[in-house]
Amino acid sequence: MRTQVAIVGGGPAGLLLSHLLHLQGIDSVVLERRSQEYVQQRVRAGVLEQGTVDLLREVGVGERMLREGDRHEGVHMQFDDERLHIPFTELTGRAITVYGQQEVVKDLNERRRADGGQVLFEVDDVAVHDVTTESPSVTFTHDGRAHVLQADFVAGCDGFHGVCRDVIPPDVRRVYERVYPFGWLGILAEVAPSTDELIYANHESGFALHSMRSASISRFYLQCEPDETLANWSDARIWGELHARLAAPGWKLQEGPIIDRSVTAMRSFVAEPLRHGRLFLAGDSAHIVPPTGAKGLNLAVADVDRLAEALVDHYRTGSDAGLDEYSAKCLERVWRVQHFSWWMTSMTHRFEGPDQDFERRLQRSQFDYLRSSKAAATTLAENYVGMPLR
Amino acid sequence: MRTQVAIVGGGPAGLLLSHLLHLQGIDSVVLERRSQEYVQQRVRAGVLEQGTVDLLREVGVGERMLREGDRHEGVHMQFDDERLHIPFTELTGRAITVYGQQEVVKDLNERRRADGGQVLFEVDDVAVHDVTTESPSVTFTHDGRAHVLQADFVAGCDGFHGVCRDVIPPDVRRVYERVYPFGWLGILAEVAPSTDELIYANHESGFALHSMRSASISRFYLQCEPDETLANWSDARIWGELHARLAAPGWKLQEGPIIDRSVTAMRSFVAEPLRHGRLFLAGDSAHIVPPTGAKGLNLAVADVDRLAEALVDHYRTGSDAGLDEYSAKCLERVWRVQHFSWWMTSMTHRFEGPDQDFERRLQRSQFDYLRSSKAAATTLAENYVGMPLR
Repeated sequence: MRTQVAIVGGGPAGLLLSHLLHLQGIDSVVLERRSQEYVQQRVRAGVLEQGTVDLLREVGVGERMLREGDRHEGVHMQFDDERLHIPFTELTGRAITVYGQQEVVKDLNERRRADGGQVLFEVDDVAVHDVTTESPSVTFTHDGRAHVLQADFVAGCDGFHGVCRDVIPPDVRRVYERVYPFGWLGILAEVAPSTDELIYANHESGFALHSMRSASISRFYLQCEPDETLANWSDARIWGELHARLAAPGWKLQEGPIIDRSVTAMRSFVAEPLRHGRLFLAGDSAHIVPPTGAKGLNLAVADVDRLAEALVDHYRTGSDAGLDEYSAKCLERVWRVQHFSWWMTSMTHRFEGPDQDFERRLQRSQFDYLRSSKAAATTLAENYVGMPLR
Repeated sequence: MRTQVAIVGGGPAGLLLSHLLHLQGIDSVVLERRSQEYVQQRVRAGVLEQGTVDLLREVGVGERMLREGDRHEGVHMQFDDERLHIPFTELTGRAITVYGQQEVVKDLNERRRADGGQVLFEVDDVAVHDVTTESPSVTFTHDGRAHVLQADFVAGCDGFHGVCRDVIPPDVRRVYERVYPFGWLGILAEVAPSTDELIYANHESGFALHSMRSASISRFYLQCEPDETLANWSDARIWGELHARLAAPGWKLQEGPIIDRSVTAMRSFVAEPLRHGRLFLAGDSAHIVPPTGAKGLNLAVADVDRLAEALVDHYRTGSDAGLDEYSAKCLERVWRVQHFSWWMTSMTHRFEGPDQDFERRLQRSQFDYLRSSKAAATTLAENYVGMPLR
């Protein structure tokens, strides 16, 4: 087999890259370890930045998103029982759209299938070879047979646990990491959201987030132990904590059947550089953010938007300038987003330690500052809606 | 002896309070443990917020400050060898004035003397009594004799190591504290400043600050161990570190004789509330900030401005509303300033630990954000020039 760009990973990054390349006449093959059903079902982030929404619409995969997604022009920040509205659109002219990552993946898969794109699911034993030569390749097994995929370039879109990052030798790779002393217990409940926009709450018992998936499905998160056991969280305890942490005067939380629950560890991670020879990392394979700022998917979209443009330049004009600056340009955004995600995490979570009371008063003063300073509220808003893609 | 307001501590807070009360016909006595010479010589902060400058001018003690002080309309932030100018006045319409705290103290002492104010120096054995009654008093020894000063109110302006804070019983006092894992080595050098405005530098070896006292005296600070020994720092080492940490293309640091050197520990501290009965704390007796934001003196001025107004209301109108809200109103500003001082510290200092490389990249991204976002630069500027006093 031979293609122009071998794409390892069929999540949103890999599928969008394949689609963007196809629009410019560049051939690719996507190799995904999981089944299509699994990829389209797994519950992930649900907040799209303005730039992500604009891009998906411009490249013809935004129709259902625009119809079914929910545009939010602000967000609620809460400290104890005080709630503060940050008006994104008033402050920045932009907005976010709530639309599940798995829906984006469905739309991209459908479009790739309709365009005759090659997306292979349930691929195994993926290995990447010769990325420092002009003829890299990817070997894998599929349907019980071994394959070799020759390509001009390899895109590593295979997530944090993928194989591509480790192709970059340790002596040229540098890793930056922070592990947070807590996790998120995430639940989906069959009940209409009790809020029109997301609520990020800092309560003395810990962080809580009220998000939503649709008009009839609510999404909640609760700060918990990093190695929390789901068995510790009965429905009664979950609702009790949500009621306590999200409580605000004159507001009531509606309960409903819990249909999904999981624990997510909180981590910040960056591997630099994002390029090695003809291998280019994009999305979670190179960087992980804590979910507090809802940035993971958006950052992956920004990476592949830049990578697609650089590859198009290479094939159209012969210029490798875009490929050469790919890593550095992506990392500017990656670190902005890492900083914002850390900031959102640090101002909303309970931290234990000898100066935890001092820390909580700092959080309180940060919250008060968001209310009293337009500049402060704008820093939150402009980061949350997202910086322009390029 | 009897007065209306007994003021413990003859630093800038106590002297300014005494002066403000005098202007409104309220009598006070200031008790200072040190000699006048000591108080007027000790080297302290040198950056006055716009609100501090305006107040000192309005109450007639700003003449020399306006003549000799140096108005700065911005500050330089530096990361490695990149320097970024934050234009305070362009962003906020306000500015800071560089004028040493000891000069403010000299001006206040002179004015108090000219107005016949009672400021007793070298007072010892100060003790505060009966603050929860209508007749508090302060006992002390002076010139070898024991005295009792009867008063309506006691103002605790006696600094972090003073006696007043401990008059508030432990069961009503709450303390918030953070100790930083580094200190500042501060030096004064007889050389014209090499910069027109302050430079805050984050270098991989640690923080450095280039400040100034006058056209011929430069002030420098270097991040060092919290328990640093001065003997470890030869002149050659000091200049070597200053040259390295402040280096920027096309810029040169001028050296001169070092005339003063000291080590300051870095601490954030707040004791709440600021009032107990008829005792009111103001300035460092209630709160300490790390010196990074140059806020200690300014915060003390804000406290006594509010306290003077509340006492004037009490005597003029019989209303205790100002006294009753004194603590809560002061604390709003105290925590805003604590947050800013922590933020300036955390973005400019070297932190050691398992994720120190990650931390430094966050600092770098914060620095880049100051450059790319007007909102971000404005948050620094509006905090540095200071919020309005009331």
